[in-house]
Amino acid sequence: MSHRIGKRTIELDRQIYILSSAGVAGNKESNGPLVNYFDEVYSDDLLGEKSWEKAESRLQKNAADAAIRKAGISAENIDVVFAGDLLNQCISSVFGLYSLGIPFAGQYGACSTMAQAMLMSALLTDSGAVNYALAVSSSHFCSAERQFRLPIEYGGQRNLTSQWTVTGAGAAIITGEKGICRIEHVLIGRIIDMKIKDANNMGAAMAPAAADSILSYLKDTSTKPEDYDLILTGDLGFLGSELLVSLCKKEGVDITSHHNDCGMIIFDREKQDVHAGGSGCGCCASVFCSKIMQQLKSGELSNILFAATGALMSPTSSQQGESIPGISHLIHIRR
Amino acid sequence: MSHRIGKRTIELDRQIYILSSAGVAGNKESNGPLVNYFDEVYSDDLLGEKSWEKAESRLQKNAADAAIRKAGISAENIDVVFAGDLLNQCISSVFGLYSLGIPFAGQYGACSTMAQAMLMSALLTDSGAVNYALAVSSSHFCSAERQFRLPIEYGGQRNLTSQWTVTGAGAAIITGEKGICRIEHVLIGRIIDMKIKDANNMGAAMAPAAADSILSYLKDTSTKPEDYDLILTGDLGFLGSELLVSLCKKEGVDITSHHNDCGMIIFDREKQDVHAGGSGCGCCASVFCSKIMQQLKSGELSNILFAATGALMSPTSSQQGESIPGISHLIHIRR
Repeated sequence: MSHRIGKRTIELDRQIYILSSAGVAGNKESNGPLVNYFDEVYSDDLLGEKSWEKAESRLQKNAADAAIRKAGISAENIDVVFAGDLLNQCISSVFGLYSLGIPFAGQYGACSTMAQAMLMSALLTDSGAVNYALAVSSSHFCSAERQFRLPIEYGGQRNLTSQWTVTGAGAAIITGEKGICRIEHVLIGRIIDMKIKDANNMGAAMAPAAADSILSYLKDTSTKPEDYDLILTGDLGFLGSELLVSLCKKEGVDITSHHNDCGMIIFDREKQDVHAGGSGCGCCASVFCSKIMQQLKSGELSNILFAATGALMSPTSSQQGESIPGISHLIHIRR
Repeated sequence: MSHRIGKRTIELDRQIYILSSAGVAGNKESNGPLVNYFDEVYSDDLLGEKSWEKAESRLQKNAADAAIRKAGISAENIDVVFAGDLLNQCISSVFGLYSLGIPFAGQYGACSTMAQAMLMSALLTDSGAVNYALAVSSSHFCSAERQFRLPIEYGGQRNLTSQWTVTGAGAAIITGEKGICRIEHVLIGRIIDMKIKDANNMGAAMAPAAADSILSYLKDTSTKPEDYDLILTGDLGFLGSELLVSLCKKEGVDITSHHNDCGMIIFDREKQDVHAGGSGCGCCASVFCSKIMQQLKSGELSNILFAATGALMSPTSSQQGESIPGISHLIHIRR
């Protein structure tokens, strides 16, 4: 059972835990600051596969396998997998995970998908509908560039506001059995459209959605930024994060000293030339499921908000003059 | 709260109802046998919009608006919308529904999306996480042809095993408040891959998934096809339906006289030249939310299984030699 507090926050009534998690990443990511946190890194971004899309499926499979192994269970124990990705028709998830034989509920929240999948997993374990749920998401720089922008062979120059799509995946197992940390509250994001149309500045498109979810949650729970060790957004990057901080300040809430963003954490800004930071479903999935979960396990972090963000657009919608609405799903996690 | 019975079926513990529903459809559909069941039909398949994609968004919005109106509530009362469609990055749902301002959880189950959205709506209302949930899905013949096959202007000849993507949408409101019919059980589909690679024979690709879900459900609940007025699949069409019946027979279960398929119901096979029947997310969404719901309301039907089916592929996965896995999500509905 769960119940609502305030206007939009859902409080879980049972003790629902993240039992295990795993983050895997590609070559560029393994040259960044998180190399020692990832469960697996790959020097070959094709992972031995014949296409970038198949490589991305492999990322999902490897992350899921590692999370299952670390939980000490087998795929047959898992009642549902919530998964999704950026590729058309979510093919990384389908072809990555079908061999596990787990009932599958495809999710689409763009780069917020990992939080959406974890949120659904938490709600369904809380209700008793499932005992073990698996949440998985991924992205791959080359499959994303090919689909959303230009073939990498073209060598197009990237805009300074652009973010770098992470080659990586994350997986987490959620259950009522005692695990590393508890999911106590969740909030399902609204689609927020500030009429931003620049597909090279996704951070700006997503920041208003993050502000909406974070401010709604703080209001619903009568808590303040100071009550949390960390307010972690998905992949706003450097520009989007600045915008988020200023949007919150406008509403009288100062998150400056508590906020960080997976897109700012995953790469070394000075040395790795990623412009505005990391992005993609695999960004917050791999960062949350590796470094953040390890910090929750060690006690370095004990009370955090995880608000992944997504830009809900396609090349077709942009070509037809549509703006880029954003969304942000939020999870409150306590050690 | 809900609990599992048998291996995969989830039984809802509260009384969860479909409070209202609406099905809308395009010109070809309005020349078919269901014209008097649809809430709205449009002689202009562009619905006054400038692109097929925008027209498809409009279908979702119109279906959602009609369902909300029929429920006698307003969009502000609804706590979550589960929606999805066939277009890349689910843009019909995003651009169709964002103006409603309802928290949004994007779903991707290809043509099984309506059942997936209804199933998630039922589970979250059952758990107390939400009071009112909205499930929406759509497809549009022209947007689907352009994206998955050939531009319609090309005038390519269709294969006899091909199905015709329905221009239509359906929306349903699910809540704990007494409504038209109850959702008693749900079953989340598994990805079933029989290694079928013919993108012009989707029915055959999806039939094994429908068989898997229906047979699992009957076993879990110790019920027989005769216990139901109707076992309704999503959009297997004529060929896929034959295959489903024979797959079930192989397992000793005869569904022949209880089975029907939304893809066989929506068009007139003799007069409408649709080859193997209707398909697309909008097929079962519009059929279920119009004719089937009206039959449940009138008492003509009182105990049915609704097993929507989806083919989990993209043009890219097919070009890269992948097969077409299927999925089928199942809902047990009683008047």
